[in-house]
Amino acid sequence: MHDHSDMPGHLARRFQQIAVAIFHEEAEAAGFDLTPVQYVALAVLRQHPGIDQATLAGLIAYDRTTIGGVIDRLVQKGLMARAISPKDRRAHVLHLTEAGLATLEGIQPAVEAAQRRMVAGLEPAEVTEFIRLFRKAIAAATERSRVPAKPAP
Amino acid sequence: MHDHSDMPGHLARRFQQIAVAIFHEEAEAAGFDLTPVQYVALAVLRQHPGIDQATLAGLIAYDRTTIGGVIDRLVQKGLMARAISPKDRRAHVLHLTEAGLATLEGIQPAVEAAQRRMVAGLEPAEVTEFIRLFRKAIAAATERSRVPAKPAP
Repeated sequence: MHDHSDMPGHLARRFQQIAVAIFHEEAEAAGFDLTPVQYVALAVLRQHPGIDQATLAGLIAYDRTTIGGVIDRLVQKGLMARAISPKDRRAHVLHLTEAGLATLEGIQPAVEAAQRRMVAGLEPAEVTEFIRLFRKAIAAATERSRVPAKPAP
Repeated sequence: MHDHSDMPGHLARRFQQIAVAIFHEEAEAAGFDLTPVQYVALAVLRQHPGIDQATLAGLIAYDRTTIGGVIDRLVQKGLMARAISPKDRRAHVLHLTEAGLATLEGIQPAVEAAQRRMVAGLEPAEVTEFIRLFRKAIAAATERSRVPAKPAP
């Protein structure tokens, strides 16, 4: 593995770079100003309304220190709202706003187009295998990783 | 693809996150303070001594504005040296220093251990296929990407 172009680490960085560039191109072309992580945060919040910041960080595998900035920007944009937790008045829970839900639904075709473009060079069966290998490698590594994805409470 | 955990973009971010964390763990454990991109920059410079900054940026698929910071840090660490180009006195060319070569050789076992850990959850044949699919997807997307990898001059 002395040639860096065969190294999983280099390939991971390169593919991630391409994935982010394609996401931004498709989102902008559809008239949306949303980063990939902001999109995933909104999508997860639709599936799990009322979770707290730490749970959201776990579900999208983002570290707790940087998730705060992601949430701040989504709140500023009016797409997400913080509310006092019904169980613990010192804690906050997160909800999508109506604008957040509309953005999530509006951007969906662009997000799906972006996902297709990222793997446009692969045959359909190869895409399935690529996703399976990603998930298998990630699942095995997550057990030892610093920022493991956590199940919803 | 409504579940984000099946989206290539989400999987790419997650795998890249794991790859960077594992690289740092292995490099630190071996006593080296080097980021993945700094490592790749040194490795490419060993293969292509005397290239200029823009060529290095192209070879590691890094954009020209941020490669400057990577090179600055490597020069500060004494691992890379800038010299006036023999062909164009206004241009700089890059070389590894002796310390840079020693670092590159010293860190190599940690880098290889990191690469193996990133895909430790896959069977050997799956690793080969994963790398093949990465390269195929990247090659197809690179033609349309903003930061294409360029061949050496």
